Amino acid sequence: MPRTAILLIHCPDQPGLVAAISNFIANNGGNIVDLDQHVDNEGGVFFMRVEWSLEQFRIPSDAIERHFSEAIAERYAMRWQLHFSDERPRMAIFVSQLPHCLTDLLARWQSGEWHVDIPLILSNHESLRPVAEQFGIEFRVFEITPENKRAQEQRELELLQSHRIDFVVLARYMQVLSPVLIDAMPGRIINIHHSFLPAFPGARPYHSAHARGVKIIGATSHYVTEELDAGPIIAQDVTPITHRDPVEALIRKGRDLERVVLARAVWYHLQRKVLSYGNRTVVFD
Amino acid sequence: MPRTAILLIHCPDQPGLVAAISNFIANNGGNIVDLDQHVDNEGGVFFMRVEWSLEQFRIPSDAIERHFSEAIAERYAMRWQLHFSDERPRMAIFVSQLPHCLTDLLARWQSGEWHVDIPLILSNHESLRPVAEQFGIEFRVFEITPENKRAQEQRELELLQSHRIDFVVLARYMQVLSPVLIDAMPGRIINIHHSFLPAFPGARPYHSAHARGVKIIGATSHYVTEELDAGPIIAQDVTPITHRDPVEALIRKGRDLERVVLARAVWYHLQRKVLSYGNRTVVFD
Amino acid sequence: MPRTAILLIHCPDQPGLVAAISNFIANNGGNIVDLDQHVDNEGGVFFMRVEWSLEQFRIPSDAIERHFSEAIAERYAMRWQLHFSDERPRMAIFVSQLPHCLTDLLARWQSGEWHVDIPLILSNHESLRPVAEQFGIEFRVFEITPENKRAQEQRELELLQSHRIDFVVLARYMQVLSPVLIDAMPGRIINIHHSFLPAFPGARPYHSAHARGVKIIGATSHYVTEELDAGPIIAQDVTPITHRDPVEALIRKGRDLERVVLARAVWYHLQRKVLSYGNRTVVFD
Amino acid sequence: MPRTAILLIHCPDQPGLVAAISNFIANNGGNIVDLDQHVDNEGGVFFMRVEWSLEQFRIPSDAIERHFSEAIAERYAMRWQLHFSDERPRMAIFVSQLPHCLTDLLARWQSGEWHVDIPLILSNHESLRPVAEQFGIEFRVFEITPENKRAQEQRELELLQSHRIDFVVLARYMQVLSPVLIDAMPGRIINIHHSFLPAFPGARPYHSAHARGVKIIGATSHYVTEELDAGPIIAQDVTPITHRDPVEALIRKGRDLERVVLARAVWYHLQRKVLSYGNRTVVFD
Repeated sequence: MPRTAILLIHCPDQPGLVAAISNFIANNGGNIVDLDQHVDNEGGVFFMRVEWSLEQFRIPSDAIERHFSEAIAERYAMRWQLHFSDERPRMAIFVSQLPHCLTDLLARWQSGEWHVDIPLILSNHESLRPVAEQFGIEFRVFEITPENKRAQEQRELELLQSHRIDFVVLARYMQVLSPVLIDAMPGRIINIHHSFLPAFPGARPYHSAHARGVKIIGATSHYVTEELDAGPIIAQDVTPITHRDPVEALIRKGRDLERVVLARAVWYHLQRKVLSYGNRTVVFD
Repeated sequence: MPRTAILLIHCPDQPGLVAAISNFIANNGGNIVDLDQHVDNEGGVFFMRVEWSLEQFRIPSDAIERHFSEAIAERYAMRWQLHFSDERPRMAIFVSQLPHCLTDLLARWQSGEWHVDIPLILSNHESLRPVAEQFGIEFRVFEITPENKRAQEQRELELLQSHRIDFVVLARYMQVLSPVLIDAMPGRIINIHHSFLPAFPGARPYHSAHARGVKIIGATSHYVTEELDAGPIIAQDVTPITHRDPVEALIRKGRDLERVVLARAVWYHLQRKVLSYGNRTVVFD
Repeated sequence: MPRTAILLIHCPDQPGLVAAISNFIANNGGNIVDLDQHVDNEGGVFFMRVEWSLEQFRIPSDAIERHFSEAIAERYAMRWQLHFSDERPRMAIFVSQLPHCLTDLLARWQSGEWHVDIPLILSNHESLRPVAEQFGIEFRVFEITPENKRAQEQRELELLQSHRIDFVVLARYMQVLSPVLIDAMPGRIINIHHSFLPAFPGARPYHSAHARGVKIIGATSHYVTEELDAGPIIAQDVTPITHRDPVEALIRKGRDLERVVLARAVWYHLQRKVLSYGNRTVVFD
Repeated sequence: MPRTAILLIHCPDQPGLVAAISNFIANNGGNIVDLDQHVDNEGGVFFMRVEWSLEQFRIPSDAIERHFSEAIAERYAMRWQLHFSDERPRMAIFVSQLPHCLTDLLARWQSGEWHVDIPLILSNHESLRPVAEQFGIEFRVFEITPENKRAQEQRELELLQSHRIDFVVLARYMQVLSPVLIDAMPGRIINIHHSFLPAFPGARPYHSAHARGVKIIGATSHYVTEELDAGPIIAQDVTPITHRDPVEALIRKGRDLERVVLARAVWYHLQRKVLSYGNRTVVFD
C-alpha cells in the first residue's frame, strides 16, 4: 500500500467546496483513493473525508498543512485535521474488573489487526493486572474514592501525557470521569455502554432491560462528554432476547455485543473515519 | 390440519405441574402437538402453552373448561385461557391519517395470511375512508377533542361491543386512549410505537432519534396500558441508519419496521402465543 | 425541494476525475447537494453519483447532456446517465398467484410513498385481477407454455413499449424469462428471489433451506440476466429461524423479507442510486 | 445454583411421552427447572431437553441412568444422553495460523465465562505457540501433508484420547479432516466456516462473496461430517457489507462474525442444548 494522506474537514456549506478541495489535490499530483462527503442540510454544514496517494504528490508531507491552510482552509473557514496512513496512534485503556473488552482489544492489537500502540493500561482495581502482564503491557492502579477522584485523575492525566497517549478507551471502566480528564481530551475518550442508548443510561442497564421486558438488547460506543452516557454515538448494535433469558443471559449475550461494538468504534477512530459535531457523529464507512 | 385445543396457563411454580397437565391431556386421549413452558425463577411463576389434537380426545370441546378447571386448574391456582384452532377472532383497527400499517394489515387479511375477521375500522379523520372502501370494510369516524374524548370513546366502545370485537389494533392511531377503552379491553389493545422503547416514548420519536444521533432506529409493538408507551412489549425490531439519513429517511425506513413489527405482534396474538404478566410478556415462538 | 439533476457515471479511474466533474457543476452555478464516489481498485473503475440543485444552474436542462458530453464525458471515456428529480418513471409489475409483493408495491404507490407511475400489471394467471382492479390498474393475462413463451413475451414486450414502461418488477412471477424480454430491457428488470443468494437458487428455496437445516433465511432482489438468479444483487436481507419452524413458517417469515427487500431495491432504482457493472452493483445509499 | 440433571432425548413421537418423562421426574422428587420439547411432524420424531433439580431427587445420581432406562427409555425406543450441571467437559482446539478465534476461545475460558477445561491445542504450524504459552496451555504441532495425513491424525487421536478430550473445536483449522478423526468423534467436532452456508463452501469464501457481489456476509458453525462444510448447522450469523468493502474488509468484518458464531456454538454444546439428527440440529435456546 502506498502512503496516503487523509483530510477530515467540516465547514459552512457553500458552492464549490468539492471542486476547491479536489483541485488542490489533483493540481499537486495527488490521486484520490477515497472520498466521502456529506452535507447536513438542516445545519448547512459540509463534511468531507478525502484520502489521496502521496506517491506523485508534489508538496512535501510536512508542508501540506501550511499549503492547505493558505490555499483552501482559511478561505472557507474550515475546521480540519490532517493524518497520514503510516501514523501509529498511541492508545491507553481504562478498566475495572471485567476482562472481556480488555482482552478483546489486546488480542486485536497483538495479532496486528490494528495499526496502534498500547503502552498503558490504567485501573481502579488490581484484579486485571495478570491480563496486562500476559500481554506485556504496563498496568497502573489508581484507587478512586469520591474524595480523591479529581486528584487521582490529575495524576492519571499526567501519566497519559508522559506516555504521549493520543486517545483513551474505557473498556467497561466502572467510574464516571470528572472534567479533569474529559476536558483535557475532548473527542479522544471512547466509552462502551452496555445498553442501546438513550435507553437505560447509567448503572445496571441489563437489569433495567430485563425489568422493562424488552425483546432486544444493545450496546453503544460513544465519545465521552460531561453529561453521562450522552456523548456523540460512534457505533451501536443489538441482539434479540426472549422471556427465557434471565438477567444473567442478558449479561452473557451483552458481552459479545460490547466487545464487537467497542472494537468497531475504535477501528473507525483509528481509521480517521469519525467526525463529531454537536452531539452527533459523521462516520465515513 | 386436525382441530386442536390450546391452553395458556400461568400459576405459582411448584413440582409436578408439567406432569399434571400432560397427564390430563394424555389420559383423555389427546396428543400434544406443541408444548412450551417457562419458569420465571425470580418471581416463582410457571407459564405454559400447550396445544393438542382433539381427534381422539374423549372430553367434548364444550366440557373441556369444566373438566380442566376441576381436575387441575383449581388445585394449582392457575390463571388460564382455553382456545380452539378453528376460532376466528374479530379485530377492529384504529387509524388516523397514515395508511401504511392499515393497508399492510388489510392485505394480510385479504390474502388469507391470517385467520381473522376485520369487520370495523375506526378513525378520528376521514382521510383513510377510501382505503377501507377499497377493501370493503365498514369505516366509522369519531372526531376527538380533549373535551369530548371520553364521550367519544364510550361510543366507540359500544360500537366495538355491538360488533363483538375481540381485540383492537392501533395502526398508527395518533391519539392517547383514555381509561374508557383501556380498562374495558385489558390485554386486548395492541399498539405500534415508532421507536425502540423505552427510548423515545411519546411524540415525534424519529425527530428525537435524529437529534440524538443514534445509529439504529426501531419499532415496538405492545399492549396498551394506562401509562403511555409503557405496556408489555410483544415485538421489537430495528434497522441501521447513518449520518446520511435525514429525518425523512428515518420516517421512510421506519415505516417498514412498523409494518413488520405490528404484523408480527398481531400474528403472535392471533396464534395465542402471548401471555402477559406484570409489565412483560412471554411470547411462545 | 428545488429541482435537481443526477449524474450516474462510471469510467476508467484516473487522477482529476472528481475535480473535473465538480468543476463542471460549480463553474456553471450548480450547488452539489449529494455526492458519492467509489473507486474499485482491483478493476481500476471509477463510479460516481452526483446530485446538484438546478436553481442557479446556467445550462438549460435540455442542454446539459450535450454540454457534459463535450466538456467531460468524452475526454474520460465515461458511461453515464442523466436524470432529473421531477421525472416520474413508469413501472410495470409481473405477477403469478401470490399477492403479497404485489399489494405491497401498490400500497406504496397509492400512498405516495414513491414517485412512480404503475400503468400496467401482467400475469400468467387470472387470480390476482381483483387486486389490480381494487387499485384501478390495467391487468393483462398472458398464459405461458413452453411452446408459446417466446411469442407471448414478444407480445408482452410490445405492450410494455406501447405503455412507455421504463422498468419492470417481477413480484414473485413464477416464470423464467426468455431472452426476448431480458435482452430488450437490460438492467431494467428487477426480481425478488426468496433465498439468500447464491444459496438456494431456482425452485422451492424454502424447502431446500429447511432440508439443509439453516438457522437464517433470506431474500435477494437483483437485476435479471440470462443466467437464472445470477444477476447483479441490489438488496438482501435475512431473518433468523429455528428448528421449531416448519417449511410453512419459513414461507410466512419469508413473505415479510420478500416484501421489504423488493421494495428497498425498487426504491434504490427509483432514486437512481444503483449502478451495475459486470455482475455486481454499486448502491449509493 | 443447586446441582441439576439434564436429559437430552429423541424418539419416535407418540402420545404420552411428555407425561411419562415428567412423571418419572416428579414421582421421584425432582423439580423441573427447564423443559423444552419439539416434535418434527414430517419425520414423526419427538425431541426433549429437560433439566431438573437434584436437591430432593430420591434416585442417586449414579443410578439415574439405569432407572430411566428401565422405566422409560426402553419402552419408547429413546436415544438419550444424561448430563449433570457440575460436569466440566474437556475441550481441545485445532488451529492453523489465524489467532482471532483461538484467542477469543481462550479468553472466555480464562475469564470463567465457560464451564470447561482446555488442556490441549493442536496445530499444523508453529506460529500460534506463543498464544498457547501466554495462556499456559500445552501446544502440539503435527505437520500435515497429503501423504501423512491419516498417520498424523491417528497420532492426534491418540493424544486426544490420552488427554481424555470430550470434544474438539476447529478454530479456523485450515485442513480437511480425514475419517480417522471424524469417525472417532461423531457429533463432537465443531467447525467454524467463514460463509453463510450453504453459500460459498470450501476455500476462500470471502473472495467468492466479493466476486458474486452479495450485500451480506455470514459465518456458520457446524458439526463436522465427512462431507466438507455440510454437517449439521449449530449457529449462523451475518453482517451487511457494501460495494465499498474490498475483500480485505470482508475478511476484517468476517473475523468478528467467526469469533461470535463459533463461541455461540461452543456455548450451546457446553450447555447440552444441541441435539443433531440427520443433517440438522435442534438447538434448545
